[in-house]
Amino acid sequence: MAHARAMLDTYPGTFDFDSGELAEAIEALIGCATTCTQCADACLAEPSVADMTGCIRLDLDCADICGAMARVVSRQTDYDADVTRAMLLACIAVCSACAAECGQHGPHMEHCRICAEQCRRCEQACRTLLQAASS
Amino acid sequence: MAHARAMLDTYPGTFDFDSGELAEAIEALIGCATTCTQCADACLAEPSVADMTGCIRLDLDCADICGAMARVVSRQTDYDADVTRAMLLACIAVCSACAAECGQHGPHMEHCRICAEQCRRCEQACRTLLQAASS
Amino acid sequence: MAHARAMLDTYPGTFDFDSGELAEAIEALIGCATTCTQCADACLAEPSVADMTGCIRLDLDCADICGAMARVVSRQTDYDADVTRAMLLACIAVCSACAAECGQHGPHMEHCRICAEQCRRCEQACRTLLQAASS
Amino acid sequence: MAHARAMLDTYPGTFDFDSGELAEAIEALIGCATTCTQCADACLAEPSVADMTGCIRLDLDCADICGAMARVVSRQTDYDADVTRAMLLACIAVCSACAAECGQHGPHMEHCRICAEQCRRCEQACRTLLQAASS
Repeated sequence: MAHARAMLDTYPGTFDFDSGELAEAIEALIGCATTCTQCADACLAEPSVADMTGCIRLDLDCADICGAMARVVSRQTDYDADVTRAMLLACIAVCSACAAECGQHGPHMEHCRICAEQCRRCEQACRTLLQAASS
Repeated sequence: MAHARAMLDTYPGTFDFDSGELAEAIEALIGCATTCTQCADACLAEPSVADMTGCIRLDLDCADICGAMARVVSRQTDYDADVTRAMLLACIAVCSACAAECGQHGPHMEHCRICAEQCRRCEQACRTLLQAASS
Repeated sequence: MAHARAMLDTYPGTFDFDSGELAEAIEALIGCATTCTQCADACLAEPSVADMTGCIRLDLDCADICGAMARVVSRQTDYDADVTRAMLLACIAVCSACAAECGQHGPHMEHCRICAEQCRRCEQACRTLLQAASS
Repeated sequence: MAHARAMLDTYPGTFDFDSGELAEAIEALIGCATTCTQCADACLAEPSVADMTGCIRLDLDCADICGAMARVVSRQTDYDADVTRAMLLACIAVCSACAAECGQHGPHMEHCRICAEQCRRCEQACRTLLQAASS
């Protein structure tokens, strides 16, 4: 995923963010989406799956929302600040909710502990971009 | 797509929206995502593609965001109002921007005219759900 | 979803399929992807969720694969027959597997009965396109 | 993305692949999907966009197909060999086509050069998994 940054350096136009912050956001969003997909599947394989439905549901939402956002911020052509800001807020909402839910299971389920970590990293990267998109 | 409604009627739990409004939102989101994917491709086939890059970019974003939202609202288990509201606002932002952009090309490009219509229908369905999610 | 057909009629180039068969495939793929997302969520809300993990997993795969295929066949610009055929075969494989799995639960779970129906309709639409793509 | 591997190590069941090969496939698929999304956007920003429509279309297909496959192989619960094999073949087809197309532009467009590299890496990782899934 040094590739996200390498690709930003080849973009033939100009863009509206610091390329280091943007590359970190792309990497964090993709990492979060993938980890959430894996965490939902691991929850499904737990003997206690009946107690994990809230976690599975948030994992699936977080994977979908962060996956869509990774695509949106991978595009620089004809940037729209309003759309970017609204989606960053949606990512922050779902990462925060998923981190809280997975965080509860973290002490006894390692997949939830790692997933909560990835969600918090992604939330932070989105907050950093949001600040840049609002100035 | 009467199927979205038929499936809602089989859901084994309870849900937090009027099933008619929810089915209309799912249908509008899917219709919008598909139409935007088709519109981006039609723009790409236009001789004037160099003038359509802003439209293609918004079409792609709108397809990604509305496609993700269609999945989120198709889930009723362990509903999270904060996540739903934030994603509805993101859909409203991108549908509004895409309708405005496609609307400009509508008079001479039929695919953009239909796409603007679908974006406005989707924006309206999301506003209706947002009101329900905020009460 | 008469919109998929209406959009095909506005495409500024030529395309490689009968527009009626193509519109039916787009509609069937989107309907299948959405129904599978709803079925996975309904399974998650069943008291017997621990017995439904195989069904949930296939529903999620089917939603992802048919959702991706809906986007691929919504594009007509610079059509690639090899890619289209390979993805049609993947859709046929997952729709067939998901219809078989959901079909087993159909007699006592209405969401699985409807989902199996949608998977079979989608499998058929993909077989029709595959025949056209192979000639 | 050492995270994909770390998550595999926490999976509460057993799985059907070597975890190193599986982690490399997940990483390659996500890297390819993201790079293709960025390459499509960079092509859209090129002054010669009218000559890049074939490349943009393949980039978009490759992002959708590899993105869907990344989700499918991130799931281990109730593994289906037929579905996995068919999707691996679809990924190989689109990565091969996209690498060939981007490879043509690589000598004068750095984003296409990097994208072709990522597509070839992804094709190779899928071939490795396919061999394991067929034995």
